[in-house]
This record gives sequence, C-alpha cells and structure tokens, in this order.
Amino acid sequence: MSRPTNRQLYLHQRPVGVPSGSDIKLREVPLAEPGEGQVVIRNLYISLDPAQRDWMSDNVSYFPPIPIGGTIRSTSLGVVEESRHPGFKPGDFALGLATNDWAEYSITHGDQLTRIERDDKYPLRYQLSIFSGAMGLTPYFGMLELGQPQPGETVLISAAAGAVGSIAGQIAKIKGCRVVGLTGNDEKCHWLTTELGFDAAINYRKTDDLAKTIAEVCPERVDIYFDNVGGEILDAALLNLNDFARVVFCGAISTYNASEPQPGPYNYWQILARSAKVLGLLTINYVDRFPAALAEIGEWLEQDKLRFNEDIVDGLENAVAAYARLFSGDNKGKLLVRLSTDFD
Amino acid sequence: MSRPTNRQLYLHQRPVGVPSGSDIKLREVPLAEPGEGQVVIRNLYISLDPAQRDWMSDNVSYFPPIPIGGTIRSTSLGVVEESRHPGFKPGDFALGLATNDWAEYSITHGDQLTRIERDDKYPLRYQLSIFSGAMGLTPYFGMLELGQPQPGETVLISAAAGAVGSIAGQIAKIKGCRVVGLTGNDEKCHWLTTELGFDAAINYRKTDDLAKTIAEVCPERVDIYFDNVGGEILDAALLNLNDFARVVFCGAISTYNASEPQPGPYNYWQILARSAKVLGLLTINYVDRFPAALAEIGEWLEQDKLRFNEDIVDGLENAVAAYARLFSGDNKGKLLVRLSTDFD
Repeated sequence: MSRPTNRQLYLHQRPVGVPSGSDIKLREVPLAEPGEGQVVIRNLYISLDPAQRDWMSDNVSYFPPIPIGGTIRSTSLGVVEESRHPGFKPGDFALGLATNDWAEYSITHGDQLTRIERDDKYPLRYQLSIFSGAMGLTPYFGMLELGQPQPGETVLISAAAGAVGSIAGQIAKIKGCRVVGLTGNDEKCHWLTTELGFDAAINYRKTDDLAKTIAEVCPERVDIYFDNVGGEILDAALLNLNDFARVVFCGAISTYNASEPQPGPYNYWQILARSAKVLGLLTINYVDRFPAALAEIGEWLEQDKLRFNEDIVDGLENAVAAYARLFSGDNKGKLLVRLSTDFD
Repeated sequence: MSRPTNRQLYLHQRPVGVPSGSDIKLREVPLAEPGEGQVVIRNLYISLDPAQRDWMSDNVSYFPPIPIGGTIRSTSLGVVEESRHPGFKPGDFALGLATNDWAEYSITHGDQLTRIERDDKYPLRYQLSIFSGAMGLTPYFGMLELGQPQPGETVLISAAAGAVGSIAGQIAKIKGCRVVGLTGNDEKCHWLTTELGFDAAINYRKTDDLAKTIAEVCPERVDIYFDNVGGEILDAALLNLNDFARVVFCGAISTYNASEPQPGPYNYWQILARSAKVLGLLTINYVDRFPAALAEIGEWLEQDKLRFNEDIVDGLENAVAAYARLFSGDNKGKLLVRLSTDFD
C-alpha cells in the first residue's frame, strides 16, 4: 500500500538573523509509518512562536537545538489519521505541545499528545491561541505566579500587542493593577487602550528617550515588568523599577536573530539597587496546574474580561514569511498557520 | 573655646577606575559643632566596603552619590565625645551603618546610630566585621533568605575569600550544602578548603575556560550562585546553573571601576532557560531582623562553625591605598582601617 506524501518544513541551515526561505525549506517525503505507540496527525493549525527561533540555533537552552535537516519543532493541532497508541483513534483531535512540527502530518508518540474534545462553544484552534501555552498559559503563570500582582501596582509589558503580552496585561487588569503596554505602532497602542483595557500604551519607536517616557507614564515607577523582548527596552524598564519590583523574564525576542553574543542589560545593577528580582519563566513547570488555569481563562473569556486576536495565515508554504513578522512587530496577537479548514 | 582639628577623607573628583589619592584627598578642618540631636564620634575603626565605590560615582543607585567635596560615606565605629541626643553620652560606643565617614570624627544624628556595649567576649571591632552588615548580616540574609539553601545542593560563591563570600560559604555549609569558592590565588583557595571548610575552591586566574572548570568541579550543576563580582565570572556561572537555581546578586565588584557602561551578563538567557531567579540583595531591608540574626551568628561563632579574617590597616592616611586592594583581590576577609587602639 503506497503511503501519502508529507510536506514538511525543515532546517536547511542555521539562520543568521531572521529565518528565511534559504534557512527553512519545504520538502515532500513519503509519510512514514507510525512506530509502536505513535500517532499520525494531519495538522489543521500550526503555531508560530518566538521560542522556535532559539531552537533553530545551536544555543545551550531548555530544549535541544533542531538538527540540520530536522523538521521545525512546533506545537500543532490536528486530526488523528492512524494510531498505534491506545489513547487515540482515527478522527480524534490531538495537540502536541512542542512535540509536533511544521508539516502536513506529524508523527508523535501518543504519550506526548493531548486529546482535544471539539465543542460548540469555541473553535478548535483556540487550543493554539487563548487556551494554549503560548498565548493563555504563559502569561497566566508568568503574571500570577512570578509577577504576583497586587492591586494598585504598576505593570509594564513589552511586546504588549503580541500573543503573550496582550493577555498578560489583561490578567494584571483583572488583578487591579495599572497596566502600561509597550508596542511598535500607533494602531496597536490604540487597540491596547480601547479594546483591551490597558491604562496607557507607549509607541517605543516614537520616543528618543524611552526610559524618560516610561518615567512620565509610570510616575509611581514599575512594580512588575513583564519582559518579552530584552535589549534596549529592558534597559529602559530597569531604570524605572520600583523597590521590590519583579521582572518576569518571558522572552528576549530582540536578541533571537543576533549572530553575535548579545550582552545582558546594561542596567543589570538596578536589580540590586531596587531589591528587585528577575524570574525566568518556563510555562512547562506548571503542567500539573494547566487544567485549573484553563478553566479560569475560560471563565474570564465568558465574562469578557479577556479579549484576544488571532493572526491567521493560510498554507504551509507561507509559514516562513509569516514567521518573520513576529520579529518585525507586524503581527497582532497569536500567529497561526492554517493547513485545513475542515473542522473550523 | 577652640575646637579640635578633624582629619577627613573627601571626594576631590569622581574616580575613573580604581580610586586613588588624586580622587580622595585628606584635609584638616576644625571639628564642627554638633547640631540638635547630633553626636560627635571619635572613630576607632572605619569600614572599607566595595559598595562605597558605587557611591563615589554619579550612578542611579540605592544611595545618593557622594557629592564632590563631601566626605567618604562609611560605616564606622567610635567613642562618643559630645552628644546632643538623649540616647548617647560621652564615653558611649556608637556605630553608624553607612551614616559616618572616613574621618577622625564623624558627626551624625543619634537616631542613625546604634549604641554598642563593650563586653569581655569579643573586641569592639567585631561590630564592623563578623557582627556587621558588611560581613555577617549580608551573607546571612543573602544566603538564607534569598538563596534558600537546601541540604545537598551545590553552592558556588565568587570573591569567596572576601568578607561576604567567606561567610556566605560557611553558612551554606551549616545548611548542609556542597560549597565551592572562586578566588584569585592559590593561598586563598587553600584557606577556604582547609580553614573554612569549603568543599572545593577554584583559582579563576588559572583556567582558560572557567565555565568548563566550574562544570568539572560542580558536576551536579549550581543551585545557588552567590555573586559578588559580576562580569565574566557571572557569565561562566550562569552556564552552569541547575534548574530552579537562585542567583543571589550581592555585588558586581568587577564592574565598579569601569568608566564605560558595562553590559549585563551575556548568558542572561540562562535565567529563563533554567527557570532561575536573580535576586537583588540589600541587607538594609532586613533591619528588623538584625538582632535575631546577630544572635545566631554569635552562636555559630561559639560553636566554631564560622571563622573569619580581619585585614586591618593602621592610619586614615593609608585608607585609600588599602581600598584599592579590594579590587585587586589582595585582601582576605574584612578590610578595616584602625584609627586608634584605645579600646582594643
């Protein structure tokens, strides 16, 4: 019996700078047979996340690098076509958290997959956006567990219109904080303050002295800085920390495409001077608490306390170009690639 | 009635690099009259601390900069000569924590002084060494409150033969940790392992690849890095963090004399990759708990669980040259300047 063809995006060479079509290429291969315990998933949606840029390098990090020739490791959601795992049967929906890949089909051990029930309330793809690690759970645990927001505190968020930042800010609002977002264009600033309830937003491209602008917008200084970007924006934020501030270190997207080693913040000293903390965030540490967190996120959705945007691109062949938009700041909310509308 | 002469060290110009006699000069002035509430202290011992280097710059920090022409702010211990404060009378002993100065006489408000009782058990100057913020209390709170050492964990300490590092390591030993010290010469390595009970010591000047050497000496990785130095040593330590590691940020002596802004650690990303924390340490936050901490430090001394060295230099005129030894790594333990042996 002949196998279907599988289209995959694979790492041809390690990117220097923003990944392009020279680094990540498309290939067609016969779909492999699943091994014992494995499940063949036809992907419906794949997730584009800043963390993947790190996996494309050969850095020492929390996941091993993607090998040259390997497919791009990803979170994806699909429908089961074949199963050699007792927990899955054809027609089931399955999600793999950083275990699948940018491909038409992923073949993954069933123990590493989560079965998703389709319901009438929300589209399946919400599992990759608001109910995902990359959009819902990361800001949930980052803000609540590491940030520990207290009513009346000032919270500053970088990449505030991104998947994580936009939710982090709204969670801080739910906890009674004053929330200020940093983003790179006026339209997104407007969206943050009018649609998402942020108290203020700063277009960092429109100021010559970001530290001073933050000081003006945050006169009581910053109690929680939720950092998605690192670099110069982190440095400006550090100069505005309040005593006992928490810096939630969620990402450093400004540095991911650098080809030279990037220095840490020049204002690192402020961590000591302000009795502050920098707290490294890996959402996977909280896996036991995902169900309770997702339930609370669901309640907030129903109460219209959380709003979000999905930025959806069609077709695997457009994934690499779409991925570059994460770094140019052109995406708004969660970036997804749709491979099929079959179960939309 | 004519006033005595007061000899003072004052900031003539902001130092570039290690402070020298061109930056800090000696002057003789008539001793000022104490104002209402003030106390005139004849200093017996003054404390030389890395933090003072920061105060000599015009950085944004936790204390205002010392003004040009101002005396060098310091912790000192002396005998009261005159008092306009109800809590002090001539003949009392008084200590000012970062409220006095490098001078024969300090004039300080009594509310900012602590009265010291002389006893037969310990020399008075222990109040500036083992019973001080700069030697005893800083590692006490840094290690116990921020580090949270657990039995069997690996603790790495920079400037391990310094006032703070030498005590931090012994406190981690008391808590059942494996303790490794970093220092700049073999004699100090020997002192750490044979006299102070460190499990191992690394002379960082004798390795081409410090990260690799740390990895060899700490095969189970580093759970607590107690950082006094910053810079390249911090970067090497970050590459060896264990998951959920704590970096106690106590100081960054390698950067204090830089004339250009210094980058933070190049391996800052490891904080995220290891779900680690960087915790800024200001001992003054724990002032309410100083008495209990000092009592426990006293018990450890009596039980010979804590040992320490005092590095004593005689004469105010030798203070500036002695101060430079903090940065060359030539001091061992707590550096003090003795102005008088009257009450030794």
